[in-house]
Amino acid sequence: MLVDLTMRLGRQTPAYPGDPEVEISQVANLDSDGFLDHVIRCGTHNGTHIDAPGHMIRGGNMLGAYRPDRFVGRGRLLDLRSQRPPDVSSIEENDIVLLWTGFSEAAAAADYYSRIPAFSTELAEQLVGRGVKLVGVDAGSVDAEPFPIHKTLLGNDVLIAENLVGLSQLVNTEFEVIALPLNVDLDGSPARVVARVLGR
Amino acid sequence: MLVDLTMRLGRQTPAYPGDPEVEISQVANLDSDGFLDHVIRCGTHNGTHIDAPGHMIRGGNMLGAYRPDRFVGRGRLLDLRSQRPPDVSSIEENDIVLLWTGFSEAAAAADYYSRIPAFSTELAEQLVGRGVKLVGVDAGSVDAEPFPIHKTLLGNDVLIAENLVGLSQLVNTEFEVIALPLNVDLDGSPARVVARVLGR
Repeated sequence: MLVDLTMRLGRQTPAYPGDPEVEISQVANLDSDGFLDHVIRCGTHNGTHIDAPGHMIRGGNMLGAYRPDRFVGRGRLLDLRSQRPPDVSSIEENDIVLLWTGFSEAAAAADYYSRIPAFSTELAEQLVGRGVKLVGVDAGSVDAEPFPIHKTLLGNDVLIAENLVGLSQLVNTEFEVIALPLNVDLDGSPARVVARVLGR
Repeated sequence: MLVDLTMRLGRQTPAYPGDPEVEISQVANLDSDGFLDHVIRCGTHNGTHIDAPGHMIRGGNMLGAYRPDRFVGRGRLLDLRSQRPPDVSSIEENDIVLLWTGFSEAAAAADYYSRIPAFSTELAEQLVGRGVKLVGVDAGSVDAEPFPIHKTLLGNDVLIAENLVGLSQLVNTEFEVIALPLNVDLDGSPARVVARVLGR
């Protein structure tokens, strides 16, 4: 069974303060053109998206540097809704770790982007040490300025997925994460992120 | 092993005549903002993309009507490089059928979008009869105006993927197709399409 972990991308999608909003406009219609067609204008970090190292690290890789295998792998859910430090002992090399804050349950709230998770830099360093390939979070960002978590992960070539939704569906499951950005060679990209829950 | 079947999306991506071109512009930079950020403007049918029924069928579904399972499934490659009718007898319900024309090997050529595959409406009807969930092609379109193949597939709720690349990598393999559009509720969307080649 596939579970969607992706925000709907549209005019209503919350945008990080200062980032462009999503714009969608119709450019053809069935009556006069014979088909319906739209244009989407969105930032590389709108809605559910992937950050490449080049987003914050000078000389860091852009998304075009990665083969598709980098975006797909065994998933691990870490419950960070409480303040207890999570147990990372079962995390293995090339895992995709999803940090569950519960924040995206209120993604439509005006303060969504001001609710920044309080992850420790130590947790980011532990995940880097474990050799994970991607870290995702169900919040607008993994941290706020001056972005120590971003820099620890991206500086060690670990990709980041932000604005995930629906992580509660993964509690007590084994799952694979498929987190595919568009095939752009940029600092980030909107992505479709789904989980394949095994044994269901 | 995952094989990428997706065109790079950028300014150079070929656009269907009359469709908007892909535009990418930088909106933030490391020196003054602390991060690199871009805006992407592209049509719902630029580069490798998925067509929903609403693209050509009045009242047809938009992409938001489909759960992720609709975009992932067992893949079948049909070699249409010759004029011989392909054998569809092994195709099963919910398969994803990739029609291999070889045309996208010259996607940068000026005549790419004027090279329209000569699929028969009968083939489209056979695929509909088999109950496939998605049909992909490595060409700019499955057909030209008045779009009989589009209308047969979309009119029977079969999704279409166009501008695939690299299908030759799938010859004599068993594979799964993962063809994920953005999470938009529109007539189509740029997509990341990959194949998981089994046993490699």
